[in-house]
Amino acid sequence: MDDVKVFLRYVFQTKNNLTIAVQTSGNGGNETILTNLLDPGDKLVVAVGGTWGEKVVDMAERHNLDTLVLRKGLGEIYTLEELEAAITQHKANMLFVTHGESTGGTLQVLEGVGDMCHKHNCLLAVDAIVSIASDPLFVDRKRMLGKKTPTPYYFDVKRLAVYWGCTEENRTFHYTFSSNMLAAVREALAQVCEEGLLTMWERHKKNARLFWKKLDEIGMECFVEKIENRFNGVTGVKIPKGTDQMEFLHFLKTKYAIDITPGHGPTLGKAMRVGLMGQNSRPEVVEYLIEALKDGLKHFGHTL
Amino acid sequence: MDDVKVFLRYVFQTKNNLTIAVQTSGNGGNETILTNLLDPGDKLVVAVGGTWGEKVVDMAERHNLDTLVLRKGLGEIYTLEELEAAITQHKANMLFVTHGESTGGTLQVLEGVGDMCHKHNCLLAVDAIVSIASDPLFVDRKRMLGKKTPTPYYFDVKRLAVYWGCTEENRTFHYTFSSNMLAAVREALAQVCEEGLLTMWERHKKNARLFWKKLDEIGMECFVEKIENRFNGVTGVKIPKGTDQMEFLHFLKTKYAIDITPGHGPTLGKAMRVGLMGQNSRPEVVEYLIEALKDGLKHFGHTL
Repeated sequence: MDDVKVFLRYVFQTKNNLTIAVQTSGNGGNETILTNLLDPGDKLVVAVGGTWGEKVVDMAERHNLDTLVLRKGLGEIYTLEELEAAITQHKANMLFVTHGESTGGTLQVLEGVGDMCHKHNCLLAVDAIVSIASDPLFVDRKRMLGKKTPTPYYFDVKRLAVYWGCTEENRTFHYTFSSNMLAAVREALAQVCEEGLLTMWERHKKNARLFWKKLDEIGMECFVEKIENRFNGVTGVKIPKGTDQMEFLHFLKTKYAIDITPGHGPTLGKAMRVGLMGQNSRPEVVEYLIEALKDGLKHFGHTL
Repeated sequence: MDDVKVFLRYVFQTKNNLTIAVQTSGNGGNETILTNLLDPGDKLVVAVGGTWGEKVVDMAERHNLDTLVLRKGLGEIYTLEELEAAITQHKANMLFVTHGESTGGTLQVLEGVGDMCHKHNCLLAVDAIVSIASDPLFVDRKRMLGKKTPTPYYFDVKRLAVYWGCTEENRTFHYTFSSNMLAAVREALAQVCEEGLLTMWERHKKNARLFWKKLDEIGMECFVEKIENRFNGVTGVKIPKGTDQMEFLHFLKTKYAIDITPGHGPTLGKAMRVGLMGQNSRPEVVEYLIEALKDGLKHFGHTL
């Protein structure tokens, strides 16, 4: 657990001693944020970018938060001015944004958002579950709001902080971690630390751009039109017209052992979501994938 | 996921189609029960048997339940009459018991408890995290209470049931499971199914009794005095007088690669908690452990 804390601080670029893993999914991570930092009735702005933001809206209702929901066209991101207008209008205690939104493949620009929130005494919560280590992210927390009502037991960060040895108190047990999950997390973090964030970001950027260029060459289109709104980890790719998405993905899986997830929510039936992250962000993987996509296009009767 | 459901139904001896795994710890499982079946103000009886029950009392407070807490001497379990008196007095909506309580090593007898609860229109919730497959347990649920207030997102069993394909609805995503955790759960369940519950229960019983007999021969004592209150998975063993628990456990770990957890909560400093479960419930493991304990006793100046 102690290694994991050190590795996490590097990956999140933070000096905050309270940097821990909660044993849960990304959604559970978001629910941990809401239930540890906000009381029922507190004011939240959710800048929805796709399915993940919608799930946070769902959570916010369950926890009786007073929520202002921002929604935009798919493939679009929010400007600093739009976010600032929303939090001042709503007098928000917290702004929630998704950094890399894998529904369509957008990257919410965070430049200046932290300082802007700080100015308005508003917490900034960021879901970076798919963008961490593929696109730059710099975290540092200024303070933690007092919370009056109890959190659910499992997600209680105060207790978790004691268990993870982030406080002056003696470590006491909170819940049992899965040893194989913890080992997997540790190893993944160790690999990021070994490669270095600058190298990783550059590698992901280079290979994402290579992929987008080659997609263009074979006549396929990215779901997110503006390059500056795309992120390096997951690219939404439009389904070729007249082709059934599931049949197309099935072809790639059975003939090429390439497993691509279909769109979901607003991208259902419109885009497939191609993840080129971690070990998959390599030029030879891009080449292999492009060959497979070309063969798929031919197979389903498209001319190249 | 489909295999896991079938295996789970066998292990829990239930025909209930809604038999799923939640990706969480045992504590998280208990919180899932409370938050899915009870509303704030609902009446709960917790029959505490050690640390795990106390944690449920903590959860119940966080979720504003009206809780009656039963506590007994360590090593003791509850009679059917005591449980019935409590739920009728409290007009309880739910009774919570821990089956195998690893704090001291007790097994709560469940014979007749289900029928008794049913008679009083009270749900029975059982934590069997350490006793499942080592001691007999027969589950079948008669009905599910209506719940008015929303559950936390992550623990929402209704949504999970859809994701696990337990309903007529099309499967929709709820949260991402860890693939290695799911694979580990599937493999563990497959091993239980392959061996068979009757064989497993008998094996655990035989090896637990062998261990207790040999403990007696080397002059060590079980923490739970009455044999009928002990369970087959975890045995609390009293620390030899005048010996520091942590030093004793460190000796076993470094010289014999045997990792025994110390007591916690009410057994802290009083008993070590020896788990002989699954692959460790074998006569040769018992023999090896007894030799190590004997050497430990000698090392710390005890006469055998």
